[in-house]
Amino acid sequence: MRDFLPADKARRERVLAVIRERYRAHGFDEIETPVMEDYDRLHAGIGGDNEKLSFSILKRGMDADGIRAAADDPAALADLGLRYDLTVPLARFYATHRASLPTVFRSIQIAPVWRAERPQKGRYRQFMQCDIDVIGDASARAEAELMVASLDVLDALGLEGGTIRVNDRRALDAMLDVFGFAPEERPGVLITIDKLDKVGPSGVVEELRGRGVDAAAVDAFAAYLERPAVESSFDEAGIRAALPDGIPDEVVAHLVDLGDTVAAARGGAVPLVFDPFLVRGMGYYTGTIFELAHPSVDYSLGGGGRYDGMIGRFLGQQVPAVGFSIGFERIVDLLPATDADGERSVVLVHDRDVPFAQLLSIKTALVAQGARVRVEQRAKNMKALLERSAADGYTSFATVTTGSDVDHLELKPLG
Amino acid sequence: MRDFLPADKARRERVLAVIRERYRAHGFDEIETPVMEDYDRLHAGIGGDNEKLSFSILKRGMDADGIRAAADDPAALADLGLRYDLTVPLARFYATHRASLPTVFRSIQIAPVWRAERPQKGRYRQFMQCDIDVIGDASARAEAELMVASLDVLDALGLEGGTIRVNDRRALDAMLDVFGFAPEERPGVLITIDKLDKVGPSGVVEELRGRGVDAAAVDAFAAYLERPAVESSFDEAGIRAALPDGIPDEVVAHLVDLGDTVAAARGGAVPLVFDPFLVRGMGYYTGTIFELAHPSVDYSLGGGGRYDGMIGRFLGQQVPAVGFSIGFERIVDLLPATDADGERSVVLVHDRDVPFAQLLSIKTALVAQGARVRVEQRAKNMKALLERSAADGYTSFATVTTGSDVDHLELKPLG
Repeated sequence: MRDFLPADKARRERVLAVIRERYRAHGFDEIETPVMEDYDRLHAGIGGDNEKLSFSILKRGMDADGIRAAADDPAALADLGLRYDLTVPLARFYATHRASLPTVFRSIQIAPVWRAERPQKGRYRQFMQCDIDVIGDASARAEAELMVASLDVLDALGLEGGTIRVNDRRALDAMLDVFGFAPEERPGVLITIDKLDKVGPSGVVEELRGRGVDAAAVDAFAAYLERPAVESSFDEAGIRAALPDGIPDEVVAHLVDLGDTVAAARGGAVPLVFDPFLVRGMGYYTGTIFELAHPSVDYSLGGGGRYDGMIGRFLGQQVPAVGFSIGFERIVDLLPATDADGERSVVLVHDRDVPFAQLLSIKTALVAQGARVRVEQRAKNMKALLERSAADGYTSFATVTTGSDVDHLELKPLG
Repeated sequence: MRDFLPADKARRERVLAVIRERYRAHGFDEIETPVMEDYDRLHAGIGGDNEKLSFSILKRGMDADGIRAAADDPAALADLGLRYDLTVPLARFYATHRASLPTVFRSIQIAPVWRAERPQKGRYRQFMQCDIDVIGDASARAEAELMVASLDVLDALGLEGGTIRVNDRRALDAMLDVFGFAPEERPGVLITIDKLDKVGPSGVVEELRGRGVDAAAVDAFAAYLERPAVESSFDEAGIRAALPDGIPDEVVAHLVDLGDTVAAARGGAVPLVFDPFLVRGMGYYTGTIFELAHPSVDYSLGGGGRYDGMIGRFLGQQVPAVGFSIGFERIVDLLPATDADGERSVVLVHDRDVPFAQLLSIKTALVAQGARVRVEQRAKNMKALLERSAADGYTSFATVTTGSDVDHLELKPLG
């Protein structure tokens, strides 16, 4: 877990403000849920491996007997836990408040989550998630709205040129059927295919052979992996060319619809890439899956997918849903520390003997003019003082002596 | 703990953005700390009664023996806890990062805290705190900066006319000395005086008599309480008139300095009221204490004070500090649900047969023009649909049929 110092925190809030404003412009509405959810809900099997990483809240007021009794059932020590994602809380929220929400509900959630990860570089035990979800729309319009809004967020942050890798879990399932894998072999095979980016086609085939799954199926899949690359456009011809024969028409039609809609909304080249081997880890995905890419980095800047089965587990009634989680922590790291726009900001450096009343009246007058103003008493090491102010985003400074007034300050540039 | 639906959440974020922007303009820098702190730090005696209300995080990986051993020492079950305020984390943060911070550090913290309150109206187990603190400045300028910035926040939210009740713990201590209370009687006597607003002078005197404290002191204090009201201005004469003789000069001088500085910064009438009976609950206050008042309500909209002793407990070196916590939850309740400014916002109502591509291209064009846009399929109950949209802050709607384009939409006002 991390502390954020002023420069870092300012950058994070600047990025959050853009994300919030852009998603809101695209018709998404922000909601908030408590950081704690019921222990049982957090351990209902939806969260996958994250359930094991969840922090539990110690039940209050336990007596010695209760604690001793919990020795054989540690779950009895906790009734609440910290959320490990924003999807479980959203499903619970939607089930609770459905009557007050639009038929198609487009949510924004911007909030921290917690996972008891082992300390390692780039893994944090508390981190921000920024999710948008569309609940109640089974059509490709829902995916298209998520994607268009998220590409707009990247644009607004100065990260133009984002693209989205797209696949569909149903296409993956059908492909494995076509090659001859048995349905019960699928989860393991998908775990291996998910490593394609890391280990390459030969690594995947080798691992599949080691899994003891159907050998003929592995041969068929290996041949498919080694076929000559096709130039795949995100239209019916391109998607069909990237897949073996035998993929259900409705899956292809959903993808084509998605491509057409995103193309119409964005204009110009379609920023979608069909990737028949994109898997994504979570077990709850039921349809389209996608990841946001940017030419400046070789890792994804977010991902999501359709999870039509989950809301039903809380509501007792099936409701289609699709979500996208933009990689806030990764995006922050790509952006400059200070704002290039440079709001008007002034450090007032004063001698010890300047009356407080004079200082504060100058400061308040500048603030009223729209500036951001920090007051600093003259220090022995003025260079360090001014450098720190520049690092905190201040762009100019002025010296205040007894008798100075706001109309005659001499502003000098900082840094 | 509460869920926040879109309209509530939008109002909260709107208020937070104003608070953040105004405090930042006044030279405060936002920081962030993790929601969890070490269990021992949260139970070090600084948090007063709040320590008992803190949520603890169950230690991970405890085995049956460990749990059984904790039966007689439940603290052994937890190594972390959720913060119950932002002051303990700030003191820890400052001690950790002092070398990277300005000599006088002005912090903003805007973050949730947790207390295991019994469920009752107006008490929440998770709520937002918005604190500003000045660390490293023992002068009245620090208090003045907190007050001027906080009054500016109220102004910016449309809550002009705020005033601040001010007292000083040292004045209170000296006053109790003057009346003849023994130092060890002080804490109990202050708890009783703190009820003055609720039970009135006679109630306070009655409770003091019941405490078994020095009877002559109670008589002297009773006589003082019943003296004729004085018109007290916030200057040396006014402050002296409101206090018995025998208050140390440096305490009065600090208050006078504060009044002069706030007056110079705000211009016009001094928005400060000296209240010699203001106590505030926390035991850690060492000097000035104050509460923000507004004519529209009879409860305070925030409060704070000087706590020069606390940073030293973490740092091993005394550093002066003063903080103010604006009452975010109370302020939100005073403000209208939707933004009177009315950003440009449009609901696009469409028939089922309008192609997604056409819909999304119209939506994106409007978004690019600066609007906030929600897409809704025509419903049987159009009245309910439009009312809900208006409640979510949308101000106009347009009907989209096959062939509509963005340049020929007919926008109609909503609500």
